[in-house]
Amino acid sequence: MTPQTLLHILYLVAIVAEAMTAALAAGRREMDWVGVFLLGCVTALGGGSVRDVLLGNYPLSWVAHPSYLIVTGGAALGTVFLARVMDHLRQVFLFLDAVGLVVFTVIGCNVAIGLGLPVIVVIAAGMITGCVGGVLRDVLCNEVPLLFRAELYATVSILTGLLYVAGPLAGLPQPLTMAIAMAAGLTLRLLALRFGWSMPKFVYTQDLH
Amino acid sequence: MTPQTLLHILYLVAIVAEAMTAALAAGRREMDWVGVFLLGCVTALGGGSVRDVLLGNYPLSWVAHPSYLIVTGGAALGTVFLARVMDHLRQVFLFLDAVGLVVFTVIGCNVAIGLGLPVIVVIAAGMITGCVGGVLRDVLCNEVPLLFRAELYATVSILTGLLYVAGPLAGLPQPLTMAIAMAAGLTLRLLALRFGWSMPKFVYTQDLH
Amino acid sequence: MTPQTLLHILYLVAIVAEAMTAALAAGRREMDWVGVFLLGCVTALGGGSVRDVLLGNYPLSWVAHPSYLIVTGGAALGTVFLARVMDHLRQVFLFLDAVGLVVFTVIGCNVAIGLGLPVIVVIAAGMITGCVGGVLRDVLCNEVPLLFRAELYATVSILTGLLYVAGPLAGLPQPLTMAIAMAAGLTLRLLALRFGWSMPKFVYTQDLH
Repeated sequence: MTPQTLLHILYLVAIVAEAMTAALAAGRREMDWVGVFLLGCVTALGGGSVRDVLLGNYPLSWVAHPSYLIVTGGAALGTVFLARVMDHLRQVFLFLDAVGLVVFTVIGCNVAIGLGLPVIVVIAAGMITGCVGGVLRDVLCNEVPLLFRAELYATVSILTGLLYVAGPLAGLPQPLTMAIAMAAGLTLRLLALRFGWSMPKFVYTQDLH
Repeated sequence: MTPQTLLHILYLVAIVAEAMTAALAAGRREMDWVGVFLLGCVTALGGGSVRDVLLGNYPLSWVAHPSYLIVTGGAALGTVFLARVMDHLRQVFLFLDAVGLVVFTVIGCNVAIGLGLPVIVVIAAGMITGCVGGVLRDVLCNEVPLLFRAELYATVSILTGLLYVAGPLAGLPQPLTMAIAMAAGLTLRLLALRFGWSMPKFVYTQDLH
Repeated sequence: MTPQTLLHILYLVAIVAEAMTAALAAGRREMDWVGVFLLGCVTALGGGSVRDVLLGNYPLSWVAHPSYLIVTGGAALGTVFLARVMDHLRQVFLFLDAVGLVVFTVIGCNVAIGLGLPVIVVIAAGMITGCVGGVLRDVLCNEVPLLFRAELYATVSILTGLLYVAGPLAGLPQPLTMAIAMAAGLTLRLLALRFGWSMPKFVYTQDLH
């Protein structure tokens, strides 16, 4: 199995996991089944879609592979019936969500690298791919995005992207770089979850306007 | 009158109706006149714009036909003065909104068909065109989108799209297919409004995080 | 110094000012440092990005000039430490924010003019560039956008755009037109702030649905 094949399999696992967590968010807002389906698609595929729109990278993944819509929407719908079981699989889902974050990040970086874009844009593309799906989910659920408030989520994505672009500069081969970047990001995310690590918050109470 | 001309006239009726209902939403949030104008434009033209951006289909309709901005923004502004009258026309507006939904859907499907995209993407393009304007309206009004919660709105759009792509496969001529798809969608929407039909809801109260 | 150079310097001042006010909004929502950084980038660069995506004008500015991401994100982060000082500079920031509005508007108009687009789209492009960053900031902070509710913000942008496209039609040279449009917009905005001017509001309390 080539690294690309492995990455693709991990991508499929990741979009399913993201769609399923989106379904739980939909359930907390008492959305109907169609809402669950749609929020699953938007959350799982939204990060990559926003990245491609911002970079002018057409066609979007779900336009080229419409089955992704069925897979993610279907996974979200299935969650309606599996939600009770999923409570017992909380640890598994947090792990898959963390895997999804680093996988999305590496795939986003790859797209920007393939377009010959500068390093900062490569890291931004990775972070957009990894994080924007969750931002769209939170905005559609009428919440301040978790990304801006908690849990080193964006930080993990930025670290993964930084290591991924730094590896080749340090002479490391591509597959090894990918493994290191993903392992480091995943480790940081799991440690942050385990020990409740977070970035310092900025609390400001004056009103400028 | 060709089917295309009829569809275009219905499109103009639909964007005016969508802009006017958006104006009422703006009024419930006590927006100012500029806010009313802008929310009218975004609601009426936002679904088609998001579809075209996602499909890379440039120029957007209001860039090619800037008068749409004046028509929709003007209709929204006019609603400020007609709101009292509109209360008595509630049924008319719900009907025009339902017409708009199926017209937008068919137009969105047509765009995707014209780009040679697969069936699932055609249906998705129809639904994005029909539904995303209302989602943008609700997000800008700081509400969980109605689409995800109520009234078979997305379901009607998906049904319309399904019938519209199924017709030619069943050997039906294009104008007849269009008529059947729109009539079926419109009927389902009006029945849903009349009898309060809705999809089952997914209610989930655990916190995954 | 050419008008273009001056406009570019003003643009850099404007994106820094927008990023810093975004940081204060982030602080009111108790976002963490990464959230502050990201909200600064989105607010300062979001208007231009949405304009370019809607017009199909690639690459986006921050893709071509990734340093903008560092400048705006860095300015937002710096605000975490300068917030106490900024309270005393309230007037300065409101002034810089007003400068940013007219500068963004003129730059947005220039982009649309360069693409050969019609006058209405030129004005819309100016307004999108000037106003959408703040809309994204408010949506991500889970608030009804200030733009739709207050302070002649969009009106100032539309006036600036109108004067900017009217000048050449009246035979005025380009640099003079730019100066007049920006001065008029800035004056209106400062007067609106000083005297609390606002557009009339539309208040509607019925429920259509």
